[in-house]
Amino acid sequence: MEKVFIVGVGMTKIGRFYEQSGRELFSQALWKAIEDAGGVKPRALVVGNMMSSTLMNQDSLGALLADYAGLRGIPAFKVEAACGSGGAALYAGYALVKSGVADVVAVGGLEKQTEATTPYVTRALAQAADADFEVFYGVTFTGLNAMIARLYMQLFGYSDEDLSYWPLKMHEYASYNPYAQLPRKTSMKEILDSPVIADPIRLFHAAPIGDGAAAVILVRGEEKAREIAKAAGRDTLIEVAGVGMATDSVDIASRNNLVVMEATAKAAQEALRMAGIGVKDVDYAEVHDAFHVTGYAALEDIGFAPKGEAPRLFKEGRFQKGDKPEVNFSGGLKARGHPVGATGVYQVAEAVMQLRGDFPGFKASSPETALTHNMGGVSTITVVSVLRRWK
Amino acid sequence: MEKVFIVGVGMTKIGRFYEQSGRELFSQALWKAIEDAGGVKPRALVVGNMMSSTLMNQDSLGALLADYAGLRGIPAFKVEAACGSGGAALYAGYALVKSGVADVVAVGGLEKQTEATTPYVTRALAQAADADFEVFYGVTFTGLNAMIARLYMQLFGYSDEDLSYWPLKMHEYASYNPYAQLPRKTSMKEILDSPVIADPIRLFHAAPIGDGAAAVILVRGEEKAREIAKAAGRDTLIEVAGVGMATDSVDIASRNNLVVMEATAKAAQEALRMAGIGVKDVDYAEVHDAFHVTGYAALEDIGFAPKGEAPRLFKEGRFQKGDKPEVNFSGGLKARGHPVGATGVYQVAEAVMQLRGDFPGFKASSPETALTHNMGGVSTITVVSVLRRWK
Repeated sequence: MEKVFIVGVGMTKIGRFYEQSGRELFSQALWKAIEDAGGVKPRALVVGNMMSSTLMNQDSLGALLADYAGLRGIPAFKVEAACGSGGAALYAGYALVKSGVADVVAVGGLEKQTEATTPYVTRALAQAADADFEVFYGVTFTGLNAMIARLYMQLFGYSDEDLSYWPLKMHEYASYNPYAQLPRKTSMKEILDSPVIADPIRLFHAAPIGDGAAAVILVRGEEKAREIAKAAGRDTLIEVAGVGMATDSVDIASRNNLVVMEATAKAAQEALRMAGIGVKDVDYAEVHDAFHVTGYAALEDIGFAPKGEAPRLFKEGRFQKGDKPEVNFSGGLKARGHPVGATGVYQVAEAVMQLRGDFPGFKASSPETALTHNMGGVSTITVVSVLRRWK
Repeated sequence: MEKVFIVGVGMTKIGRFYEQSGRELFSQALWKAIEDAGGVKPRALVVGNMMSSTLMNQDSLGALLADYAGLRGIPAFKVEAACGSGGAALYAGYALVKSGVADVVAVGGLEKQTEATTPYVTRALAQAADADFEVFYGVTFTGLNAMIARLYMQLFGYSDEDLSYWPLKMHEYASYNPYAQLPRKTSMKEILDSPVIADPIRLFHAAPIGDGAAAVILVRGEEKAREIAKAAGRDTLIEVAGVGMATDSVDIASRNNLVVMEATAKAAQEALRMAGIGVKDVDYAEVHDAFHVTGYAALEDIGFAPKGEAPRLFKEGRFQKGDKPEVNFSGGLKARGHPVGATGVYQVAEAVMQLRGDFPGFKASSPETALTHNMGGVSTITVVSVLRRWK
């Protein structure tokens, strides 16, 4: 069967864009991706988005975004998997291309959170959790993750400071990323002085609220990909070598183990199996660090680190420049930002640019194989992709 | 490439189920489909839903429904395309199976509208229209369709009564359908005496608000399909011979022509092309008649009738028992009901049963080829499938 390649990527800066609508942001990202693909127009659109229904009062989102971008008529639909919507859109878009249902597909992601004030956004984000068995009782999404962070710290003996090396480093990376929402360095003092949102999670341990849109263009078959790469002036191809998705219970009370993200492990195994490689073959990764503990757990459950050891290894310098894998040079959700349903697409776009060598921020050491890890809910819906550079 | 078959279907009765949650309804439909498929369990779930975010306060819907049904862990995500969400889920699910990303996929649909009172449902339904350029000005979804109905009546010279033969017949069909929300006959007097919702659309010209869930099981390859059919005691196979999706502008003011549903025409052409047949080869169809005018326009724009003539032909007895195609023996959205994001999956399940000869309501004349037509918005997102019976 024909292979699937990513021939173009585009994204907006992440921020609080009160003066721009969701459709405007998305159109900018999509057209950057089309231009990056030498002008090839997608014949279908799959868009990852969580909160257009609750914050933008807008359904029919796929058609709306296709039309506004000047692509009226093409097949277009929205995929929702909470914060993993972008990854899920990639999963669906990959299948559309691989199956031949469409030969050129745009996979996009959009979130426009500044349509509402923070209390409404907090309520909308909580819809990633179980409405009847969790949110009904008043817990927020940060509250759920805080319980897991506390347990993780107790089980593995980490302090507030121990876990704070993650955001410290993410802010440093983001300071080089022109698309980042928080492109500035921070200090351990600033992190530890920042207010507690939900104990033990502080403001600087959590991803910010922001708007953003990203898109990647998928095509079917090496011949088509080479033709487009040539037109775009590139001599490398980026293959989507594997995609894996797995889920878990939405309510965390019925999990087997609160500090092991089973869906992450399953999705990673599936994507690596499809790509025919092992976890040790991954050169570069973008992982879903909505909170500091999530970033560490991702490293562990993907298989990059033994359980409970990621914070120690990270503090020692692992997963940083020159290591294998290098991780989150975008700045991660923490500092690049987390435009919810778009995040999974940002990660893929960033990984593609790192593989091509043209990421305009902190550069990886010429990786050949990259992995992206995107989650919805508290590791409820996870999508992992494996991308591979061809000569 | 391997073909895709539907090996099991299941649905709940449509109604106002205040005492049941969405996850309960969906689980019932999914397990009926699994049992109908001889017990084969899906390895992925794609669920069509429009309003879980607005009416159930629930995102992460795919994972939630998979877990509640006892299938924790499988890839699962929601597809949103307004009232066309069920059709869009079929489109995505077809690609997952066809590509081999998953070999057994459940495509489901769910809507739980009785979570809220009618004004809230009306507002949520309006999110199918353009939030910024239509709904902001106060129009409802029925209001938009009413403008089109009025124009259609003026252009083609039809009266209130002329268009009312559609609901008259739909109620008759629904009276035989054990799953229908309104399983009772009506009269021309009752229709014409019913209150106007948005002039010229009366209560009996519109689909009711209701809850419901449906699911179909897709598998990859004839061998697997034959094995399952045998285990389920059937000697026929149902192939998904074609799927087509197309979109239009969300706001109707920027359409080329208000009485021609261009997305319907495009999606139908694509599905028929993929199936290698013409519109004249279709024996049976389920079309999306959210309003009487929508049903007629669907017949015209799919290509079953010349533009403007469907009401006249229907009144004369065309598209009814013994004709080619026979249409909407379920009772249609009008009387079977319209559990929004599930409707497209109901249509597919009904068409499969008509092809197999085991639909428990008004029976078609042994069709070999069936077509389903599902729309989101005012013909904004349309999905057409072509199903074919194999011996």
